[in-house]
Amino acid sequence: MSSILAQTATRRAPHAVAQATRRTAAAARYHASTSARASRSKLAASGAAGAAAVAGALWWWSTSTSSLVENLIPAAECKAGPIKVATDAVNLRPLGLDFAHRGNTTFKSPVIMDTSKPMGERMAAYVKELQNEIVGALEELEQAEAPSFNGAKFERDAWTRTDGNGGGMSCVLSGGRVFEKAGVMVTVMESKMSPAGVAQMRARGRDFGDIPKDAHVPFFAAGISIVIHPNNPHAPTAHMNYRYFEVRDPKTNKPVAWWFGGGADLTPTFLDANDAAHFHAQLKAPCDRSLGKHAYPALKEWCDEYFYLPHRKETRGVGGIFFDDLDTDSPHAPKGATKEQLFAFVRDAGRAFVPAYAPTVARHMRQPYTAAEKRWQQLRRGRYVEFNLVLDRGTKFGLMTPNARIESILVSLPETARWEYCHTPVAGSPEARILDVLKTPRDWLNVGIGAAVIPDDLLDANLAVKA
Amino acid sequence: MSSILAQTATRRAPHAVAQATRRTAAAARYHASTSARASRSKLAASGAAGAAAVAGALWWWSTSTSSLVENLIPAAECKAGPIKVATDAVNLRPLGLDFAHRGNTTFKSPVIMDTSKPMGERMAAYVKELQNEIVGALEELEQAEAPSFNGAKFERDAWTRTDGNGGGMSCVLSGGRVFEKAGVMVTVMESKMSPAGVAQMRARGRDFGDIPKDAHVPFFAAGISIVIHPNNPHAPTAHMNYRYFEVRDPKTNKPVAWWFGGGADLTPTFLDANDAAHFHAQLKAPCDRSLGKHAYPALKEWCDEYFYLPHRKETRGVGGIFFDDLDTDSPHAPKGATKEQLFAFVRDAGRAFVPAYAPTVARHMRQPYTAAEKRWQQLRRGRYVEFNLVLDRGTKFGLMTPNARIESILVSLPETARWEYCHTPVAGSPEARILDVLKTPRDWLNVGIGAAVIPDDLLDANLAVKA
Repeated sequence: MSSILAQTATRRAPHAVAQATRRTAAAARYHASTSARASRSKLAASGAAGAAAVAGALWWWSTSTSSLVENLIPAAECKAGPIKVATDAVNLRPLGLDFAHRGNTTFKSPVIMDTSKPMGERMAAYVKELQNEIVGALEELEQAEAPSFNGAKFERDAWTRTDGNGGGMSCVLSGGRVFEKAGVMVTVMESKMSPAGVAQMRARGRDFGDIPKDAHVPFFAAGISIVIHPNNPHAPTAHMNYRYFEVRDPKTNKPVAWWFGGGADLTPTFLDANDAAHFHAQLKAPCDRSLGKHAYPALKEWCDEYFYLPHRKETRGVGGIFFDDLDTDSPHAPKGATKEQLFAFVRDAGRAFVPAYAPTVARHMRQPYTAAEKRWQQLRRGRYVEFNLVLDRGTKFGLMTPNARIESILVSLPETARWEYCHTPVAGSPEARILDVLKTPRDWLNVGIGAAVIPDDLLDANLAVKA
Repeated sequence: MSSILAQTATRRAPHAVAQATRRTAAAARYHASTSARASRSKLAASGAAGAAAVAGALWWWSTSTSSLVENLIPAAECKAGPIKVATDAVNLRPLGLDFAHRGNTTFKSPVIMDTSKPMGERMAAYVKELQNEIVGALEELEQAEAPSFNGAKFERDAWTRTDGNGGGMSCVLSGGRVFEKAGVMVTVMESKMSPAGVAQMRARGRDFGDIPKDAHVPFFAAGISIVIHPNNPHAPTAHMNYRYFEVRDPKTNKPVAWWFGGGADLTPTFLDANDAAHFHAQLKAPCDRSLGKHAYPALKEWCDEYFYLPHRKETRGVGGIFFDDLDTDSPHAPKGATKEQLFAFVRDAGRAFVPAYAPTVARHMRQPYTAAEKRWQQLRRGRYVEFNLVLDRGTKFGLMTPNARIESILVSLPETARWEYCHTPVAGSPEARILDVLKTPRDWLNVGIGAAVIPDDLLDANLAVKA
């Protein structure tokens, strides 16, 4: 559980200052360019057209279920500007992909929507069902790419903790045609936190009432954690994680505190503004629906802050959303929000992952690439390893937890990675372009967080797609 | 400097308990085998013969300077048993390698042996000269392997800190025929430690007299740090680091404390007991000469403890020596030891690196290998990355140091690495054999630290050499 549960982050982490600096620098850079500013006005005006284009890019995803597309893409809110749709998206149709059943609001397991059941039980049922959905979608991509041998499959690996207090199911695919390595892990556990663990949670503001400082505190946790590394350097890596955490009274074993945490983020090797804007739009929709308009900008910023490598002065990728400590008192929950409403958000956000990510993989998995592009991907994979081993709280917590299942924690690492001394991309190259975005997070959906997406970015990015 | 300077470790780290457990388990395993015990008696009796064999293996190293060989290998003390000399060592002669000038006790720079000069100046001159020697030796190996294009060369990259308080020379070779990536870095700097940094040093027992707790304390540091990753999976990775640290009074700028730290360790992909015993014997010699008989066992054990990955329950490699806080009061310094004597030890230990490591590379760099063996090397490289990013104090300190030169810190990472979910070697395979040694550190030179080296180990290991 450790890798899933411990991704706790204070709302204003030490990176906040760096983040602010980056934003200031980004703003200066942007405002210095009057031509860019002029372009931006045009861009805002053409927001609706851009949104329509995004919707168009996804037509194949929903096949003929246009209402589903509307569900997934809040057209009026997607104001990233004139996002060009990669024309080869249409060519995916012959692959026979059919993801129409994803995003469906009904669940196979009735317990998920049964409000008479404890939330822990419902969340556990939900993450298990989501795991199956996601594994299924990724296997469909494998099968579409390699129909002759029916595609690579996930290995399903059920495990229990050595102390017997829980376990999980790790679904891992490696050596696929599409995916170098993909892990879709579910963990459900009941155990006790050490006093030090409880103190850490109190330090970030959690209130556990009368529970004494020296108590070993029972908790329940259920979560899903996903990391996917495709082979093709033009197909981005993605990460997703949603978890429910419940702290219980040591005497009565009744819940004294609970919260949700999680998020999803995209890590491309090369910039494709379509992919980034699409991914963000898909994650913004559940935020808007269940938490209100203020939520996405805040969780987007939190994501940029959390996935930041101070020693490289760059973010891990193009971001997404990130949150923790989401309960009814959270500043990110709407006034008067119910636990049910927050669970609805987490359900929606989790189910948005496949529509947010799978089309991007499908669009790039057959894109030709050079050895140099593969090498750049490997170098970026090295950065991914650096983030996960040095900075990710979940991984760090897991590595220090006795009896932790190390393979489930480190399955997030790519299969292959590379480090070169003082590697510096040529100015103006696609490699330099993505680095620029990683050093200055962009405002993909024009919500006022990050540097404005300027048309030049999009035009340049699309060069890569045409290859 | 950070990567060099911060490799400070308390003598009895948290791993000590784990280490003790491992030793107990190893002892139990050993004593359970009566046949092994019987063999061990024979083994001890044949110590001299074994030592002679090691000396023989190195004949080509010293060409005809037999006195040099005696200097490097304390024959009577090398009791690892009947170490078999790989017969292909002799075949290296046609490579035309001539390392006879290494290990010479004279230096080009007179300041190194000039006792009227400050130690900082002498150490700086020493590490610079050692850097040249080591770079030269590694380039000779490259040239021997690829004479037609004169061999790959190191890129020499001089740098200064952004605050102007020091700098260094990073010599890096990548993409060679012999070496995938090799970094030989020297740093010399004068700067100030934060009160927190000083508090950390005080916490591990350093005494800075009257210096107030809130003072920013001036220090001087000079060091050399080396990590070498060969291409051939049968040639082990090696690390070496020696440093001199001096803390100065904030008012007078006169030294109030000083110490040496460092060590060297070997990380093979496949077990070759010859390599391990040879490497240890070369490092034991300078310990014996300058610190006395008690030093090598202690520094060997410290090395096994420091390079231990708790989350994998294995050591990084087959060890070597590791030490810190070496001053005249250190428990590892002989009674009445002078600073000069300790510097002599550091000089000798540094110069032992080429004789300890280069012959092993030469012996394996042309050894045939399979794709499966290369893959195993990549997986072990992954562990190396884990150690350096998660556990190595120098790297961690460097990553958190503002204005640190990140490329010099992370040059220790291999060029390529790999992670596979739940990879488990077949029982009895060469992959399983090295894992066994990593889980139970061996007593390569029969000094009473680690599990006894039993003849079976050696016989099995030699299979790999014959390939």
